[in-house]
Amino acid sequence: MSKLMDVQTEAQTGTEAQTGPASPGPDLSRISPPYRVAGPDEGFSPEELALAARNHGMPQEALRYDVTPVGLHYLLTHYDIPAIDPAAWRLTVGGRVTRPLTLDLHSLRAIPARTIRVTMECAGNGRAGLDPRPVSQPWLVHAVGTAEWTGAPLRDLLAITGIEEDAVEIVFTGADHGLERGVEQDYRRSLPLAEALSRDVLLAYAMNGAPLPPQHGAPVRLVVPGWYGMAHVKWLRDITVASEPFTGYQQNAYRLRQTPQEPGEPVTRIRPRALMVPPGFPDFLSRTRIVHPGPVLLRGRAWSGSAPVTGVAVSTDGGTRWAPAILDEPDGHRHAWRGWSFAWRATPGEYLLAAHATDDSGATQPTTQSWTAGGFANNAIQLVRTVCVPTTTT
Amino acid sequence: MSKLMDVQTEAQTGTEAQTGPASPGPDLSRISPPYRVAGPDEGFSPEELALAARNHGMPQEALRYDVTPVGLHYLLTHYDIPAIDPAAWRLTVGGRVTRPLTLDLHSLRAIPARTIRVTMECAGNGRAGLDPRPVSQPWLVHAVGTAEWTGAPLRDLLAITGIEEDAVEIVFTGADHGLERGVEQDYRRSLPLAEALSRDVLLAYAMNGAPLPPQHGAPVRLVVPGWYGMAHVKWLRDITVASEPFTGYQQNAYRLRQTPQEPGEPVTRIRPRALMVPPGFPDFLSRTRIVHPGPVLLRGRAWSGSAPVTGVAVSTDGGTRWAPAILDEPDGHRHAWRGWSFAWRATPGEYLLAAHATDDSGATQPTTQSWTAGGFANNAIQLVRTVCVPTTTT
Repeated sequence: MSKLMDVQTEAQTGTEAQTGPASPGPDLSRISPPYRVAGPDEGFSPEELALAARNHGMPQEALRYDVTPVGLHYLLTHYDIPAIDPAAWRLTVGGRVTRPLTLDLHSLRAIPARTIRVTMECAGNGRAGLDPRPVSQPWLVHAVGTAEWTGAPLRDLLAITGIEEDAVEIVFTGADHGLERGVEQDYRRSLPLAEALSRDVLLAYAMNGAPLPPQHGAPVRLVVPGWYGMAHVKWLRDITVASEPFTGYQQNAYRLRQTPQEPGEPVTRIRPRALMVPPGFPDFLSRTRIVHPGPVLLRGRAWSGSAPVTGVAVSTDGGTRWAPAILDEPDGHRHAWRGWSFAWRATPGEYLLAAHATDDSGATQPTTQSWTAGGFANNAIQLVRTVCVPTTTT
Repeated sequence: MSKLMDVQTEAQTGTEAQTGPASPGPDLSRISPPYRVAGPDEGFSPEELALAARNHGMPQEALRYDVTPVGLHYLLTHYDIPAIDPAAWRLTVGGRVTRPLTLDLHSLRAIPARTIRVTMECAGNGRAGLDPRPVSQPWLVHAVGTAEWTGAPLRDLLAITGIEEDAVEIVFTGADHGLERGVEQDYRRSLPLAEALSRDVLLAYAMNGAPLPPQHGAPVRLVVPGWYGMAHVKWLRDITVASEPFTGYQQNAYRLRQTPQEPGEPVTRIRPRALMVPPGFPDFLSRTRIVHPGPVLLRGRAWSGSAPVTGVAVSTDGGTRWAPAILDEPDGHRHAWRGWSFAWRATPGEYLLAAHATDDSGATQPTTQSWTAGGFANNAIQLVRTVCVPTTTT
């Protein structure tokens, strides 16, 4: 194996960034920078910008679509998009199963398929707005999208292989390979057994009715409705049923903690968030919105991975006063965002428009940031700067 | 009309940014910031980052595809992606034509279609690497893609309407509406008559064999093979044949000049560029590439909008020494990029890999930046930082 050791099975604390070969070789910290937060007033670096150019968000006007068109759904690729020939693709299923097996795409498609509409959000959405800012993929609020995923329920596949009694987790490995904070790895994450056996967890091979595009995990990815994006392992190549909790790099990286050293809690389900289709029209650079006086129907979407959205409120003064929005009728897609609307009468002036969501568990969005060392699950309310400009009568 | 005047027909110099209503109203410079360059060591701003999150580039590993999958092709939207019902869409054709007309999509599809494979690049590609950096969409080198466009040749439509003898240009107007440096406008650009009547200029309604996605100009966009992206007007709603050169905002904005005040030359055809499929695997944050010792086949693409690519050279030492790459056989797609390969034997160490293209006109890529005030057509050679790490024998 490479001198850039795969220490993911050894790495059980937050200190892998310091782990690396002691033998002569290149300076790994220059290749693979350790964790840091940006300094006060430090602008975004070329490295952060390069990640933003690769890993695109959903333009906010695309909140208008019930299902996000391909190419507008958010995307995060840790390493490279792998090149996988669907005809040569195989999925191995092993570990604590009764009958290990290797499947091809044809066999996977033989399992009766389900299609589920899912709103997916990156756990790092909102990271770029944190103060101080953890230096990583710099998401503002664009890392979201809703797609119709079609595939085989994982539990139907595991019914074929059988699961041993001592199984506690399922570990999923993707074909994407890279280095991250000094650790060479394939992207790998686990789910607790009970979560993995939900009927809604899919091995998806189609998105919006077409084969998965390369960037969304072709030919097959995991879809875990309600969970942040890191759980939906793309370019799936192996499923291993495990009798011990998995403690690899990505399992450790996605945790909510105040310092990289403390154990923290795992990132799991999506916290509630509401976003607005930006009203009127934008300025190219500042993205400030311009509207004209009169009635303006504010529309948007709200979602939560833990419980159904039960309320959305809107503010036009930056969050001082709130009024309830009208939720769209439930459309039967319980894992997808819910539409909302709010009738605003705009008069000349400057506004900070905002919306916030509350879910059936009582969870809501904070007005201030939710700071964690990894920059995860920051669902602070977004402000949409809007100027109402008089319409002349000429 | 709005107090944010549409002064595009009046704006003939580089000074529109200072133009705006003198009457009481919001401070337009705060809504719509004027032109500026970033200061020394100024990091990227949240506004630049927001543009990068909306307007995504092509991840460089996607250079492996002859035709870029939808969602990986680069994208630049000046304002918002408009919501257009294809059934309600109409295209007006007027101005200096003999028979003005209004078409629907059905009528446009009745004109015999052509399909052309086109490599498209944003004129601002490379802007973010400039020193000093013009503050705008901050492209590194990702703003490129190749698609198969299907549509009606513009000249076949204009053969139906007829063109008056005094026609000199064709003006194209999109449905995307916004404010840019104080100027409220629909996106609008012209082509000289001779360029517009090329048989390869299309009114495209399909991309890679499917209807245009919303973000690529649905239902119909202009495609001008060989030209930078600003010419390929999306969400096309009007074609006006003009007897005077068009001098609107976007025509004036896309010019090559050293100060915003000087007239400069228009941005037209794509300058030569070669890019490399990044070898090996990446570090998540730095995107440094890791390879192991031994033969590494470097592959990439090269293109030019002015003339066929006739040569690609590769350097492994940051551009000191160059050796010729092998060009793929011509594939008959004269408006699309050309593949190249180079056999490299990697030995342990650090490398700056680079490729540069030369076209049949003799144009090549500079080793230093091509600075212009707008940050256009900077086709400086890209360096790919790569580390060759020994493979251990254990």
